Formats: sequence, structure tokens, C-alpha cells
Amino acid sequence: MAVYTDVGEAELAGFLGRYDCGPLLSYKGIAEGVENSNFLLRAGGGTFILTLYEKRVDRDDLPFFVGLMRHLASRGLNCPQPVVTRDGETLGELAGRPAALFTFLEGMWSRRPHADQCREVGVALAQLHDLASDFDLRRPNALGVAGWRQLLDGCGPRADDVEDGLRDELDAELRFLEENWPKGLPAGVIHADLFPDNVFFLSGELSGLIDFYFACNDILAYDLAICLCAWCFEQDGAYNVTKGRALIEGYRSARVLSAAELAALPLLARGAALRFLLTRLYDWIHVPANSFVTKKDPKEYLRKSRFHRSVRSIADYGVHE
Amino acid sequence: MAVYTDVGEAELAGFLGRYDCGPLLSYKGIAEGVENSNFLLRAGGGTFILTLYEKRVDRDDLPFFVGLMRHLASRGLNCPQPVVTRDGETLGELAGRPAALFTFLEGMWSRRPHADQCREVGVALAQLHDLASDFDLRRPNALGVAGWRQLLDGCGPRADDVEDGLRDELDAELRFLEENWPKGLPAGVIHADLFPDNVFFLSGELSGLIDFYFACNDILAYDLAICLCAWCFEQDGAYNVTKGRALIEGYRSARVLSAAELAALPLLARGAALRFLLTRLYDWIHVPANSFVTKKDPKEYLRKSRFHRSVRSIADYGVHE
Repeated sequence: MAVYTDVGEAELAGFLGRYDCGPLLSYKGIAEGVENSNFLLRAGGGTFILTLYEKRVDRDDLPFFVGLMRHLASRGLNCPQPVVTRDGETLGELAGRPAALFTFLEGMWSRRPHADQCREVGVALAQLHDLASDFDLRRPNALGVAGWRQLLDGCGPRADDVEDGLRDELDAELRFLEENWPKGLPAGVIHADLFPDNVFFLSGELSGLIDFYFACNDILAYDLAICLCAWCFEQDGAYNVTKGRALIEGYRSARVLSAAELAALPLLARGAALRFLLTRLYDWIHVPANSFVTKKDPKEYLRKSRFHRSVRSIADYGVHE
Repeated sequence: MAVYTDVGEAELAGFLGRYDCGPLLSYKGIAEGVENSNFLLRAGGGTFILTLYEKRVDRDDLPFFVGLMRHLASRGLNCPQPVVTRDGETLGELAGRPAALFTFLEGMWSRRPHADQCREVGVALAQLHDLASDFDLRRPNALGVAGWRQLLDGCGPRADDVEDGLRDELDAELRFLEENWPKGLPAGVIHADLFPDNVFFLSGELSGLIDFYFACNDILAYDLAICLCAWCFEQDGAYNVTKGRALIEGYRSARVLSAAELAALPLLARGAALRFLLTRLYDWIHVPANSFVTKKDPKEYLRKSRFHRSVRSIADYGVHE
């Protein structure tokens, strides 16, 4: 949950004065997103999401994030569309922070996704990759393979507090991934955080994708590997082959996966599991107990990492070339 | 901020099936209220607030709270109106908690109230007292004068951590109030927590009162004394006589204050300041640092308590009989 910055009515009305959104009627801080402060705002012209970008987001990245959403929305992807001021701007400043106004997406995220939803996510992810292919800004993936060593070093010896020998295990896994990470696979803009709470459904259909604040340039199939980790495991840690097949086949129905991409999927999934394991482990060790941020269990991704290490080919995910 | 309980779409849809509110479109946990989990919910039939009552609220009190809101709304006070199911119910159960659906009130609370807003609050408070006079349920004030001793005892010697000698000072003040607390003043249903964040304004006018979860039966003028504490001090701790006068005169424009009520106001204000000082002090000492609840500074109310002790008559508040 996240409302780090409160906003007064007068300064908010001043901010909104640059938009054609009608008079302000109400605004409520909402428990959505982790990095930023978000308000659900009602005005004469409709319902909006107001986002204030907090310290953890680099201001230099904002044109990429907001520009990407504008690009994708203009091409028909259901995602929050940045509202444009009368001066043509999509980014402003409010309460001393960069701020932007977005259209509101109806829909609910699925607490227990089923296979049909996994298939729809696969389709939407492929569409995102396709529609973003002519987006002209670039952002390297700070949490990609080249950044994992620094994360692991930052965890230090306390990794073993989570499980005896974990530090050595992760060190070996990381070394393997660094040496074998695939080269030459199709790359482009990826969402990089398409977890269930970032996908809305309405009346049984996918109604929108949100939270593009980890989006970056990286291997496209790595984004699918992230979704495989995020969508296709049961709460007891078991991989669900029906969901995995639905996700991957959904993706393939909208974008062709080459033989090389398919073959790389187990390795990319090991990378995806390690990436979320490392950030969770880092937060577990470093975020103070009295923080607003709810700490997530690193062990969930340790189990997923071990599962992907046990995979011999994509047949184990329930799919074939 | 407060979302203690998450709710899945399927169980929420089941809950809403008992209402004529149309299909569920979206719901977001909002940072409003401290005791309960609140969601801003959009459905085919409009926008609503969904409240899940958490442990700190006594289930036996819910018919009083929800019944009072229904009573006041039906008599024209702008407050959240409990939505009634097709079976005529206003209280249900969701995610293992008592739950209720309310109409949504537009409007914004004032972070820096000005005198005109204090006057409007005075008027609305008097209207509330008047409109609630024929509400037939009763709820004793657990945080009234009879309950303060237990709160102070519960703070123990650590009160002196806030300021040297505070425990003795509060003990003497409480003994004085216990011995001199007024008897025979007009009593009825009071809001008991009408702070600025519980009053909405829209287009310069008061648009609604919310959060009736401290409402109870007590001395009516004590409710005005609470507002005097909550609305009429500057951030530097100074009493603002213009705001105080506006609040009290606003109240008097809608309900006659007797000479006895006016004369008792300084004493009631001492009680109000002590009540919020004690609960803040109690939380300061007992609420763990990693709690979601934002702890409020008890010293703010220590300054207000001392101010009210210095008051010789209501002339010091800027008003006359």
C-alpha cells in the first residue's frame, strides 16, 4: 500500500488547472503500487488516477515510462493513458514531486488466476511487445542479468539467515546464468513486472495492463519467462502445467516464438526467478521493519528457481516446438 | 492509511449480489479511516464505499453506527448512506468480517481549514445533534470522562518519557475534571470525532460528514468542545480566536446553547483535549513501531490542554453569552 505524500486541495486544483478535466470533485489515496503515491481522483470530466513519483523512481526515466504508456494507449492497448495538458504536457510537478494524470481503467486483478486468464495475459504480453516495437525511447534493464551480481553482493552473508547455504547456492546459480545467458534473441520493450496485480479483468476478459514502472529494453522472451514465474505456480509452490501451457500458447497465438526463443525459455525462467528472489532477499535484509513496504517472502522465488533448474526442456512447461 | 483485509473478486461479487448496485466494475483499497478496511468501489449503479469492520470495532456497536448513518441520511444530513440489500439489510459479512456498503460522498477535506469552514462545521454539528435527537439506539461513550482514568493508568510511568512530570500533571488534571465534570447539560448523540479529515467540502460548501465510528451518547456541548480542539488551533499551537468564534457562532445559529452550556465550554474543552491527549499518549507508548497505524504526537494535545486550562471564560474563545 502506498500513499507517501499527501496533497492539499488548493495545490491539487492548481495542478489540475492545466488540464481540461473539469472541476475537482474528490480524491482518495489508494493502496496501489509500491514505489509511488496514487490517488483515485474524480472530476467533472471523469475518473482519473493521479500519480506522484516518489524518490525510488529516477526522474530521468519518467519520459520513458509515461511516453511508453502514451504510445501503447494510442495504438489500442488497454493501459492507463497519460492525460495531456492544454500545453501538450504529460508530466508536471505537484507537492514537490513529478506528477502525472492518467485515465482510469475499470477492472479487477485476479487473486487466483485461472488458465483462461493466463492465456489472455500471454496474448496481451505479445501485443505489448508488438505495439512497442516502434517506440523510440530506450531504457536499459537495471534489474537484468548484468545487475544481479550487485544485488547478491548487497545481500551479504545474511542471505544464509533465510536458509543455510543459500548464499553459495545463489552464487553458483548466478555464475551459471552469467556464463550461459542467451545472446542474439529478439529484444525490445518489455513490461518486466506483469504480475497478477498489474492485469485487470472485467466480465471475464482482460481489460487492461498497469504499472509500467519497470518497463525497459531486454529480451522479449524474458518477459514471458517472468509471467511464467508470476502466473503459473500454485500457492503451495507447484508449477501448474495447464496454466503454463495456456500462457505460452496465448503468447504464441499473437507473436511467433522462434525455436531459439523456445529453447531458451527454461534458462530465461531461471533468470526471472533469480531476479525476483534477489530483490525480495535484498528487501528482506535491508528494509526496516517499520517501513510501509510489505516485505514479500524470498523463499517463494527460491522454490521457483529450483523448479526451473529442474526443467530439462520446454516440454516440462507443457509445450512443444 | 488502512487496508487490513484484501478481498477477492469472486467473494466480493457474491456479497454484492444481495444488492441492486449493478455489476462490479472495479474496487481499490483506499487510505481512509484507521480502524477499518475501506474500498472505493465502482459498479453499474454508481460509486460506493465498501467498509470491512476490523477487530478494533465491536460488532455489537455496528447496528448503532450504521443505523445512525441511515437515520441521519434519511433526514437530509449529508453523510454516507448505508445501501440496503433486497432483503432490507444494511450489514453483511465479507472475508470473515462484518461489512457494509455506503453511498459515496464527493468532496475534499480541508488540510488547513479557514474560519468560514469552521462556521460551516459548527452549523453541521448542531444539525447532527438536532437530527439525531429521535434516534432510538444508545451507545455509552467508552472514551468519556469515566473512561479516562483507565487510559491514564494504562500509559503508566512512560508518560514521563514524553515530558518530565507529565504523569503527575495529567493525574491532577484528570482528578480536577472528574470532580468538576458538569452534570445536567443537554445530552444526546454526538459524533465525538469530527476532525477536519471527517468533513468534506465542495465548491466552497460543506458537502458531507463521514466516519461515525466514535459516535455515542454524551453531552452535546462536549462535541462542540472537541471541534474547538480539532479545528481552531494553528499548526504552531496557537488558538485562533476568529476560527473559534466562527465555529461556536455557527453552532449557535442552528441550535441554541444555554447559558450553562456556554459556561461549561472551557471545562468541556479541557476534557476534550485530555481525551485526545490520553489516546495519543496510549498509542505512542503501546503501538509497535512496525504497525500500519501512523502515531500522532501527544504533545499537540498537551499544548491544547494547557491552553484550555488558561481560559477564564468563554470570552477567551472570542464569544459572549
